[in-house]
Amino acid sequence: MNQAYAQLEEKIGEIKALDHMMDLSNWDESTNMKPASAPNRAEMIATTTGLRQRLIADDAFGELLESAAEGELTDMEAANVRVAARTRKQAIAIPEDLLKASKHAISKCQIAWERNRPLNDWANTTQYLEAVIALSIEISQCLADTFELAPYDALMNQYETGSLQSDIDPVFDEIKAFLLREVPNVESRQISPIPINDTFSEADQLKLAKFSMRELGFDFERGRLDQSAHPFSCGTVNDARLTTRLSADDFTHSLFAVFHETGHARYTQNQPAEWVMQFVGGATGMAVHESQSLFMEMQVCRSDAFLEYIHPILRLLLRRDGSNDAWTLDNFKRMVRHVKRDFIRVYADEMTYPFHIFLRYSIEKLLCNGDLTVSDLPDAWNQGMMDLLGVDTRDDFENGCMQDIHWYAGLFGYFPCYLLGAVFAAQLYRACVRKIGDQSENVQRGDFSAISAWLAENIHSKGSLLEGQTLIRTVTGEELSATSYLSHLKRRYVDP
Amino acid sequence: MNQAYAQLEEKIGEIKALDHMMDLSNWDESTNMKPASAPNRAEMIATTTGLRQRLIADDAFGELLESAAEGELTDMEAANVRVAARTRKQAIAIPEDLLKASKHAISKCQIAWERNRPLNDWANTTQYLEAVIALSIEISQCLADTFELAPYDALMNQYETGSLQSDIDPVFDEIKAFLLREVPNVESRQISPIPINDTFSEADQLKLAKFSMRELGFDFERGRLDQSAHPFSCGTVNDARLTTRLSADDFTHSLFAVFHETGHARYTQNQPAEWVMQFVGGATGMAVHESQSLFMEMQVCRSDAFLEYIHPILRLLLRRDGSNDAWTLDNFKRMVRHVKRDFIRVYADEMTYPFHIFLRYSIEKLLCNGDLTVSDLPDAWNQGMMDLLGVDTRDDFENGCMQDIHWYAGLFGYFPCYLLGAVFAAQLYRACVRKIGDQSENVQRGDFSAISAWLAENIHSKGSLLEGQTLIRTVTGEELSATSYLSHLKRRYVDP
Repeated sequence: MNQAYAQLEEKIGEIKALDHMMDLSNWDESTNMKPASAPNRAEMIATTTGLRQRLIADDAFGELLESAAEGELTDMEAANVRVAARTRKQAIAIPEDLLKASKHAISKCQIAWERNRPLNDWANTTQYLEAVIALSIEISQCLADTFELAPYDALMNQYETGSLQSDIDPVFDEIKAFLLREVPNVESRQISPIPINDTFSEADQLKLAKFSMRELGFDFERGRLDQSAHPFSCGTVNDARLTTRLSADDFTHSLFAVFHETGHARYTQNQPAEWVMQFVGGATGMAVHESQSLFMEMQVCRSDAFLEYIHPILRLLLRRDGSNDAWTLDNFKRMVRHVKRDFIRVYADEMTYPFHIFLRYSIEKLLCNGDLTVSDLPDAWNQGMMDLLGVDTRDDFENGCMQDIHWYAGLFGYFPCYLLGAVFAAQLYRACVRKIGDQSENVQRGDFSAISAWLAENIHSKGSLLEGQTLIRTVTGEELSATSYLSHLKRRYVDP
Repeated sequence: MNQAYAQLEEKIGEIKALDHMMDLSNWDESTNMKPASAPNRAEMIATTTGLRQRLIADDAFGELLESAAEGELTDMEAANVRVAARTRKQAIAIPEDLLKASKHAISKCQIAWERNRPLNDWANTTQYLEAVIALSIEISQCLADTFELAPYDALMNQYETGSLQSDIDPVFDEIKAFLLREVPNVESRQISPIPINDTFSEADQLKLAKFSMRELGFDFERGRLDQSAHPFSCGTVNDARLTTRLSADDFTHSLFAVFHETGHARYTQNQPAEWVMQFVGGATGMAVHESQSLFMEMQVCRSDAFLEYIHPILRLLLRRDGSNDAWTLDNFKRMVRHVKRDFIRVYADEMTYPFHIFLRYSIEKLLCNGDLTVSDLPDAWNQGMMDLLGVDTRDDFENGCMQDIHWYAGLFGYFPCYLLGAVFAAQLYRACVRKIGDQSENVQRGDFSAISAWLAENIHSKGSLLEGQTLIRTVTGEELSATSYLSHLKRRYVDP
């Protein structure tokens, strides 16, 4: 190991220690902390973030990076240097004052959003969002100059390095054309599920959630399940934390959220443990992270084989084993695959979900390029919802352009990761089955070991060795393409 | 505000942010984290501690401290500078290599202690303790040189600044003489309590714990109660965390631990919120912290008035309202005040508890001065237990010199804080009653508001404005003295 590189690892270790501590603090904030403690917690996080920024921007860190890169390095070490250099480049691209102003504006905007959204109060939110967007545009220009990218690409690359609008647009366009054509057909042919009018105890739902997580490979010796307002997954290879939200009258939404988050958590728990205090030990971007949750939720857990496996189990654990038309396997399949054009992204089914992304992706590009003002945003939103989903959201801001926190939290360029993740997941599932054979029989009897081993070997254990698209290309032998994703939707929804 | 001081506050804010994050991490480790995650968590803490040390040792921080001290300062600001200067002086007194070696030795020793204690395996623990002590001696010499104190005083001052052996020894000696004389008298005259042979559900015990905390002034809007292997209290004014351990067949131990920890937590929750990110905002040493828990547990909650108030409530909440000799008020009083010479410090009653401190205090002074070797420690322990308590612990290391983690965690000079806290608590209680009048009637009907307000005003809200003994002197108008403590014991146990 070269001397400079060894010193670099020590410096990175400090940055990662702060990252992991802040990650734990975020988990705590969502699971344990009382709301009254939030302002001081935010101050601690802001201070720690500033300290982290200073560690990265430090000249000595830059010099170590350069010296380390000149010596001999293994593949993982070289990737570690690459991610570190990129992280530093990004950190010093944005002037400290601009970053502070942006964080300040975001903090105020999030508070306004949280207060005003349930009141459907758009008028008193716009000024905060305008401030966030103006500063995001400035940041995008700094990043664009540094990375020699278009401003929106530069924003997106903060979450998904190496993917550009020019890669994504043709894929998204192909998916859009397919869905605009096929969703009405599916809708007209599908049989509506019989609703389950029933309530389920927290204890029973948690038992089912933990059982499912364990079966799907979550290691409870190195992680936990808790409850929070919105499901999420975080933590490290040694300590993965997953949350869900339970609803008394709808167990399916929570259960599929658990499947989804378990996909994220499996990625985390299979990362290379010896690299946990280094950049290369973490996930390679949000699209690949999303591909792992959607691999689990969509490719595996909404498949016939899985539904056939889990259905008797959930009836047993939820103690609903009597006879009832709503509780048949066929009705359960219809429930979790029902296609319905609706307002809310996070409740959307697999077929209409992409429309929600197309809408946000097109609008946020306009916002970030200065081609759409905040005051014109609701009209653009409604027009998009009408065009894509045929749904009228006029004057319903809460379920319209105020439904997601992303923009109010300054997250521009994040939304495409969700759909890119779904596309990656379909490519990966096909490559997996090509390699290890059809898994229906295994899944049907609850044996996920072959799938798990394949994912661990090919994706999880690689950490950030390769960037998103490069990783997918290396593993699947294919470029980014909508083909696998569309065949998957066709097989499941169009020609079942 | 002087310019240098303003910059100093920013730098201190970074150090406190790391402190608070590490505090949260410790809480999480004891309440949520799985054991398998411990090694990596320890690595994160070690790295963050190293970073914190660098921030404090930084020359620029030292220069800011000097400039800030030269400008005009309020009392709180001046105290903030004083504590910061002291913290820095302490940090740079110990060479980095020595500190690292010590932390490493402690980490190995704690692991050995945890493994060997339940096995009563002393032989395989000694080498680790020897290493810890050798390095603690080196550290004590560095601190002694820097602070111009005797080595043991220098160790003790890490936890209780401004108190010396020469202050403590006469007070401890007076208490010792009193107890050696009076404990046998109390034992011979007391009526043994009738044991409660019963078990209590976690839910009922938690309900009782939360009710009591709320009544004693704990603010659940800014804090929580959780379970852990050992009860403790931590957190900040905005977010105080308290834990307890529940035992199915002994609700009293847990309940009085809750009273004790609530005393600590009230101190935390009443600290000056505007100073939370500064040194002066925290507790002024461990003896005063302990005085707050013992004020609550011993002065208030073991009083006749409180027991008369809580007895019908706990019978109600634990659902034991039938008639039974074990459940009378008199028997309850006997239970929580039963004097019994025994092996274990943390289970000791109020009268025999000081003996456990005398023993540890005298032995650790010898160890730190090199006047006692680890191989002679068990004999010294047994001899001390025989002399002070008449209890033979020969060959019982688990319940003998291996019972407390302190020495194995390198905490030398900590034990006297416990008894000093009890002495402070008695002085404070007397001063409080002198000021606001006898509180028996208020306590008997569950009104703790006058006591709470007095403590908040005179102790809690002061943060670290004054050092331990100075604070007590300012508030009580008395020097450190055993008088109040001994009258308290006399009234409760000797001449009830």
